[in-house]
Amino acid sequence: MAPSQLSDAELSALVERVVARVREQARFDAVPPNPELRGTWQDNTSFLMSAGASRVGTGGAAPAAVGHLARYIDHTLLKPTATRADIVKVCEEARAHGFASVCVNSTWIGLVARLLEGSRSMPICVVGFPLGAMSTASKAQETRQAIADGAQEIDMVIDIGALKGGDHDRVHDDIRAVVQAAQGRPVKVILETTMLTRDEKIAGCAISKAAGAHFVKTSTGFGGGGATAEDVALMRAVVGPEMGVKASGGVRNASDAQAMIAAGANRLGASASVEIVTGGTSKGGY
Amino acid sequence: MAPSQLSDAELSALVERVVARVREQARFDAVPPNPELRGTWQDNTSFLMSAGASRVGTGGAAPAAVGHLARYIDHTLLKPTATRADIVKVCEEARAHGFASVCVNSTWIGLVARLLEGSRSMPICVVGFPLGAMSTASKAQETRQAIADGAQEIDMVIDIGALKGGDHDRVHDDIRAVVQAAQGRPVKVILETTMLTRDEKIAGCAISKAAGAHFVKTSTGFGGGGATAEDVALMRAVVGPEMGVKASGGVRNASDAQAMIAAGANRLGASASVEIVTGGTSKGGY
Repeated sequence: MAPSQLSDAELSALVERVVARVREQARFDAVPPNPELRGTWQDNTSFLMSAGASRVGTGGAAPAAVGHLARYIDHTLLKPTATRADIVKVCEEARAHGFASVCVNSTWIGLVARLLEGSRSMPICVVGFPLGAMSTASKAQETRQAIADGAQEIDMVIDIGALKGGDHDRVHDDIRAVVQAAQGRPVKVILETTMLTRDEKIAGCAISKAAGAHFVKTSTGFGGGGATAEDVALMRAVVGPEMGVKASGGVRNASDAQAMIAAGANRLGASASVEIVTGGTSKGGY
Repeated sequence: MAPSQLSDAELSALVERVVARVREQARFDAVPPNPELRGTWQDNTSFLMSAGASRVGTGGAAPAAVGHLARYIDHTLLKPTATRADIVKVCEEARAHGFASVCVNSTWIGLVARLLEGSRSMPICVVGFPLGAMSTASKAQETRQAIADGAQEIDMVIDIGALKGGDHDRVHDDIRAVVQAAQGRPVKVILETTMLTRDEKIAGCAISKAAGAHFVKTSTGFGGGGATAEDVALMRAVVGPEMGVKASGGVRNASDAQAMIAAGANRLGASASVEIVTGGTSKGGY
């Protein structure tokens, strides 16, 4: 039986099992604070492997040199004050640097799809963003509309309140509805890790996998804080090698980017994408 | 011809005229900074009248004493981390104090409608919240779904990026689509004043009126800062007496509430609602 066809009771049991199993892995509690994971990727890979990460890097390939980071990056502009001119600019940057995608709010996805036509960069769209507290039917409809407008991937926000309230069935059904509405296009589930306990992060990953999502993602960039290498390593350990892990929020330079890849991310969300691939550092933003 | 049936060119001309007219009213530039408007409502009323506000208070009625503020208040819980138990609690508080409504994200509106049945408090719902950057079709669908789930009013966020980009037609059509989807239920348009210039605030009010909305509203509570008496007075001056003005964000005690009413608000959004009607002060929140 596919995970997405589990009954409510089976889902609850599965989530409990995953949370318990990861909690038992005391070695994970030994993952040190952020600074220790911010060295070179070579430093971190061996450390993380010894800490029990089930997958490090992307499919075993060597992490990218600065010049090759572009293909990991969802070039992102989600500020509500962004104008048409700002959107046009990020699409031009994506073409110039070969970023994996341009990630925008749904009001802009049609424009982005047109602007990226014939390029290597995909138009991708957030849904239920950034609170994740939109009704399931509305998240599904926003997904359908975004795909009709040209979105090739969907980054949805998990139902944070339901997750915190322990209503795992509701969290599952919400993700499942978006996965179905996406008609096969990859769906990323944003956990908003800074708002979650460790057990909630683990449960969020397990439920995302059971619901048929393709990626888990750390942050919206609007929730205070962002991706940490510890969270990325934990998420990778829970979802295993067959799902994607996207690190987003606070990725501001090549060193940040490489640390996230070393911790297990195979996609990065950033607004500082041009700085990342040209060796600079952004002072703020997503 | 009703304002909502204006052609694109007529709308642009109307907005330009309204912005120009209000800009010319130099007396408005004399509205002093916040502290001067934070006295008693009696202090502020005469000041604001002299400053050119077209309406002060609510239909000429004397502003409410602390005990009667409840009927002005949309008791609000929009935090993404809110659980079912938190939602139940605000509904109980609304029943106990007779707040005008309970205002929630769309994932909770069905529950709130059931919990408020037979009470004096309305279930109301935010849409496209808090960025306002959701596609128009999705805002309209979220509105339809919220009303099907029992919402009696809709608080939508304006397309901030389109407003800042000067694309007034797009701003208009976005609001108009939600007004139509609301099937006669009152629609409030959240401007997110802290992100706007004075001219953009004026244009936002004029366009909201032309599109057939019922209220303009200052803030989401997520955009940094919140309602100021100056903004409320400006918004009231632009929309005139026939529309509502809702002050939201940073309304934390009875004094704040009375200052907003004195400046022209006839509805208040607050999470500190119980403190407001019992004479306390909240330290944070919406």
